[in-house]
Amino acid sequence: MRLLPGRELAASLRAVTSARSAELRDAGLDARLAVVTASADEASGWYLRSLAAAAGKVGVSCDVVDLVGSAAGAVAAVLAKLSDDRGVHGIVLATPLPDGTRLADLAGAIDPAKDVDGANPVSLGRIMTGLPAFAPATAAAVIALLDHHQVALAGRRAVVVGRSAVVGKPLAHLLLDRDATVTICHSRTRELAAVCREAEVLVVAAGRAGLIGPEHVGAGATVIDVGTNVTASGELIGDVDPAVAEVAGALSPVPGGVGPVTTALLMRHVVESAAS
Amino acid sequence: MRLLPGRELAASLRAVTSARSAELRDAGLDARLAVVTASADEASGWYLRSLAAAAGKVGVSCDVVDLVGSAAGAVAAVLAKLSDDRGVHGIVLATPLPDGTRLADLAGAIDPAKDVDGANPVSLGRIMTGLPAFAPATAAAVIALLDHHQVALAGRRAVVVGRSAVVGKPLAHLLLDRDATVTICHSRTRELAAVCREAEVLVVAAGRAGLIGPEHVGAGATVIDVGTNVTASGELIGDVDPAVAEVAGALSPVPGGVGPVTTALLMRHVVESAAS
Repeated sequence: MRLLPGRELAASLRAVTSARSAELRDAGLDARLAVVTASADEASGWYLRSLAAAAGKVGVSCDVVDLVGSAAGAVAAVLAKLSDDRGVHGIVLATPLPDGTRLADLAGAIDPAKDVDGANPVSLGRIMTGLPAFAPATAAAVIALLDHHQVALAGRRAVVVGRSAVVGKPLAHLLLDRDATVTICHSRTRELAAVCREAEVLVVAAGRAGLIGPEHVGAGATVIDVGTNVTASGELIGDVDPAVAEVAGALSPVPGGVGPVTTALLMRHVVESAAS
Repeated sequence: MRLLPGRELAASLRAVTSARSAELRDAGLDARLAVVTASADEASGWYLRSLAAAAGKVGVSCDVVDLVGSAAGAVAAVLAKLSDDRGVHGIVLATPLPDGTRLADLAGAIDPAKDVDGANPVSLGRIMTGLPAFAPATAAAVIALLDHHQVALAGRRAVVVGRSAVVGKPLAHLLLDRDATVTICHSRTRELAAVCREAEVLVVAAGRAGLIGPEHVGAGATVIDVGTNVTASGELIGDVDPAVAEVAGALSPVPGGVGPVTTALLMRHVVESAAS
């Protein structure tokens, strides 16, 4: 089985972004990302640290705005204020959000031009209709990783496990744009293993450690693991049981697969926004 | 095989809409739909006539704005003007559009509050994220027709043939909202017949007469035909060969299936918009 690592791709993306952000800095423009966090969740904390590290590597300033414990209205007000701030070029609202608050309810307050993680429903509608917009970085990273490892998509069966507005749904549209035949599975899917075995490309973004085992994977299939679950001991693991290596043709690792590409693409989006 | 007609459902939808529009009229409010047409296409002409007829049945005023031959910019300007017109409650931009013009490019000029056929990418993004919005009437009609005939969706395999932003893509989201496992096929899908045979509910919105035959249908499957193709003799036919009756468990007819439900729902949207 072939491993599909993302670190090399992330490094090459960062090299280009780094050069562009240096050009902008020489022209007096400091590319800046604001990350708003409203949750003390452990996976979220891990993501914030990886964003700050990725920003540092490419010369993007990264401000973390800690709103843990704030009401939804206060979060939306901060997003609107950052949208109006000419010194801020990208805005990310970290998930998960506090119980009872949905990303789509708040992300409408992010200026689409600064919506570098494609969270505003306006960005998603534009992606769905083929108009220019920043795609959610994780969804874009799956496509970039598949391209980097020369996994063909046109005319092939892709199965996405997970129907979140953050990953599963936008990814389905990106895969359709690449002419894949796309199936979306979720917690209510019957005979999940049988449906997943139809996939030539299986992308798992369910957020449940070990959900996908060898019985879910067709012989020779390419498996992309988008899961980022933090174990009791603080280890980061995916949604895919490494035992799928018995049947899969290729598998992206966690950590070191989609994750580093995601943060590298997010930084590219920030610099693109700053340059526009 | 069971037929799944739409006329009875359309009539009951119209009865409710008619009563609401009469209440609004008594209160001095004349619910009004503006239909902008930029194409002399035959299927489009058929759709315009059916809209005008449906509007008349429920006491909704229907203005057709004929912009055949106009440039895209002129069409967008008219859509923006109608959006600002307080006397207009619903705006539909008829498809197909002239070559080289995409619905999404122009429909952004339709105020989402008046976007009764869910064409603005903002409406589509809201549907994708579960926020309130008018769904494209055809996609909503498919769900309404399935509900009316008590076809279960939760946990079942649904296959949508067609990936347009007008029907296929939004319908996939509506089916996901109903907990179906959804596959989207299109012109680049390999082994279309085999993929379609996996469907317990097969919805065909490809715009190609006779595309789907008995070999595409699993035994007992429910088939919804969204196609509206006009033959050389002016007859309206669907995308599904009537011969699928040999294997299907249920089939919606064309005409008299999804079509009348679509126009009835569109009028309901106009009256809802007027009332809000």
